[in-house]
Amino acid sequence: MSSIYDYLEALREKNPLVYHITNMVTINDCANITLAIGASPLMSFNEEELEDILKFSSALVLNIGTMDSSMMNIAIKAGQIANKLNVPIVLDPVGVGATKERVKFVEKLVEMVKFSVIKGNMGEIKTLIGDSAKLKGVDSNEDMKDGKYIGCKLSKKLGCTIVITGKEDLVCYKDNIYTIKNGHKLMSKVTGTGCMTASLIGAYLGVTKDSFTAGFLGTLSMGICGEKAVKNLRNDEGTGTLKVKIIDNIYLLNKNDLKLGDVIFE
Amino acid sequence: MSSIYDYLEALREKNPLVYHITNMVTINDCANITLAIGASPLMSFNEEELEDILKFSSALVLNIGTMDSSMMNIAIKAGQIANKLNVPIVLDPVGVGATKERVKFVEKLVEMVKFSVIKGNMGEIKTLIGDSAKLKGVDSNEDMKDGKYIGCKLSKKLGCTIVITGKEDLVCYKDNIYTIKNGHKLMSKVTGTGCMTASLIGAYLGVTKDSFTAGFLGTLSMGICGEKAVKNLRNDEGTGTLKVKIIDNIYLLNKNDLKLGDVIFE
Amino acid sequence: MSSIYDYLEALREKNPLVYHITNMVTINDCANITLAIGASPLMSFNEEELEDILKFSSALVLNIGTMDSSMMNIAIKAGQIANKLNVPIVLDPVGVGATKERVKFVEKLVEMVKFSVIKGNMGEIKTLIGDSAKLKGVDSNEDMKDGKYIGCKLSKKLGCTIVITGKEDLVCYKDNIYTIKNGHKLMSKVTGTGCMTASLIGAYLGVTKDSFTAGFLGTLSMGICGEKAVKNLRNDEGTGTLKVKIIDNIYLLNKNDLKLGDVIFE
Repeated sequence: MSSIYDYLEALREKNPLVYHITNMVTINDCANITLAIGASPLMSFNEEELEDILKFSSALVLNIGTMDSSMMNIAIKAGQIANKLNVPIVLDPVGVGATKERVKFVEKLVEMVKFSVIKGNMGEIKTLIGDSAKLKGVDSNEDMKDGKYIGCKLSKKLGCTIVITGKEDLVCYKDNIYTIKNGHKLMSKVTGTGCMTASLIGAYLGVTKDSFTAGFLGTLSMGICGEKAVKNLRNDEGTGTLKVKIIDNIYLLNKNDLKLGDVIFE
Repeated sequence: MSSIYDYLEALREKNPLVYHITNMVTINDCANITLAIGASPLMSFNEEELEDILKFSSALVLNIGTMDSSMMNIAIKAGQIANKLNVPIVLDPVGVGATKERVKFVEKLVEMVKFSVIKGNMGEIKTLIGDSAKLKGVDSNEDMKDGKYIGCKLSKKLGCTIVITGKEDLVCYKDNIYTIKNGHKLMSKVTGTGCMTASLIGAYLGVTKDSFTAGFLGTLSMGICGEKAVKNLRNDEGTGTLKVKIIDNIYLLNKNDLKLGDVIFE
Repeated sequence: MSSIYDYLEALREKNPLVYHITNMVTINDCANITLAIGASPLMSFNEEELEDILKFSSALVLNIGTMDSSMMNIAIKAGQIANKLNVPIVLDPVGVGATKERVKFVEKLVEMVKFSVIKGNMGEIKTLIGDSAKLKGVDSNEDMKDGKYIGCKLSKKLGCTIVITGKEDLVCYKDNIYTIKNGHKLMSKVTGTGCMTASLIGAYLGVTKDSFTAGFLGTLSMGICGEKAVKNLRNDEGTGTLKVKIIDNIYLLNKNDLKLGDVIFE
């Protein structure tokens, strides 16, 4: 690799299999974005075949979205097998702060399974750190400082990469931080842009075990393609077209697009 | 409110949360249309978090579509909690006349849960009234008379708003009827236009507890946007594009579009 | 029928109901493609209503994709009722070679249920024949010979039509073979083109019990429409648009398009 952006081509060369245990709302979009970036999605909710599938998987994406029993019954077992087989895992703890049941379930997941990347919005990641003592986010500047503080703290605690999505996305590993300024707020009007970001991170984990790089490239890919999709919308187009165009742009993405990302590394 | 059409802007201001317990076929479309109109969708099939979610929900949409156990196991409990918390509920009794199991399940739902709006096609609503004695629909004129008779009768019986979708849509509350002539028959070639209408009604229920108004505005929004989407299709476009354009048009919808609806109130 | 291509119009005239017991990833696309070709999709995972639904179904599509319990618990019973009621069944044994659990489940299905059409890629069909002794596929020419050998052998063994999708699609019934050269490799970058092909075959089975004809017409319809969709993509469009355009083209498909298919019959 002469540059980390070469991983996009490596991904398309290798076509890694990304096993998803995910929610019912965006499962189709996750499959299509995984294909669009150049990887292979596989979705199964069957306990008996977990190990067979993980043996030929390059990454596992775990998304708690709809909290259905088909996911909850196998999530921890799948995570533990993936750990045993050294398959990296992305966790998307959707809505974790919203209910006690989600908090309880994610706490158990984080205790029993080692994740490579955990991706959430500020509220979700704040819930995971469980410590709001030093937080003072009242304007968006302070919010970014809080994000960096929390992201790095949680990264050190869990030994994994933390991605915090928002107006600007943060990718934290220990004391290293990427701030990604790409993206557009309209993307939040399409369901699943977050879930799809986790799928992209999973795809990159299929070519690099460096979770900081994979977390960064997956998040950057979505930011760049989403922003481009919004900017190219016509006046008579809206969020239906936007979803279609996000997948189009991921399919069309190349190394040079990634290099033009609006990124700060510190 | 100087006009009921102002509720669209109120909705976009408030961004009410609409909790969906719905089918597996159109769950993604329901989420995207809810976002497009300006509300927030949440989908969960987990019994343990029903109450937590309903505490911050503005409306509940219950759709029996795929009749899967994940929905059936929680539907009645969710409905009863929503009733207790005063969260309005839309019921979409998909295909209720088609099987004994659906009839039995919906009868139980209607007995144990109080709904704000029930939305179905003529066949579904006829099944719910369980009385075809005075029906004589042989041409579409008589069918509309039957629809008004059934809609008002069922509304009085259940104390809720009844929406009957079809060539013309009827929204009935006691003896008040809106007839909506917008829409286009091609919309029936896209799965989920009915389910999405229920989501839109749920979104409006998030800003007005007046179920007659919410039922009307949700149905009218879909009729106007669907019709516009069909009319703007190019010759080389079909039902794939139509779905995308319906969501686009809901996103682009404004108060003036609603005012131009082809509506009769009686 | 003056030509088998007339079945497309017959299908649109009859609007046959195609009952799907299918996976969670592409269930929406299967419903929309079924509507686009002119049939009616119905999806249900409820054991109690299987028989009621099959009584008015023209075909059953069974797809094991996500191997979830909602499908596995009812698949064999649904198949046996369909057999009893003489409702033709399409089996899509997704990923059957990938895990022991899938092999075991499909072997049981094939033993206990009689299918009209089984559709898979070469790997899936090879797993079903369970005999690789005479196979020598190393280049694509030999692979096609293997495909014909396996397809015809499996057809005779199970007494049904075998569809093998790939660079060229093969439709085999006993010693009769259609080779379809339409299609485009980019279609494999959209999830569900295979599942949707099974839905199309199911739709045609609603108007002809001749499984060889239905298997051919369904596969040909997808090949022609997918190829056309790829060729009409603009430079700034990708696989998101491709899915939309495939559904559009199925909706727009007519008899003359089918007649222009690049087909060899032997």
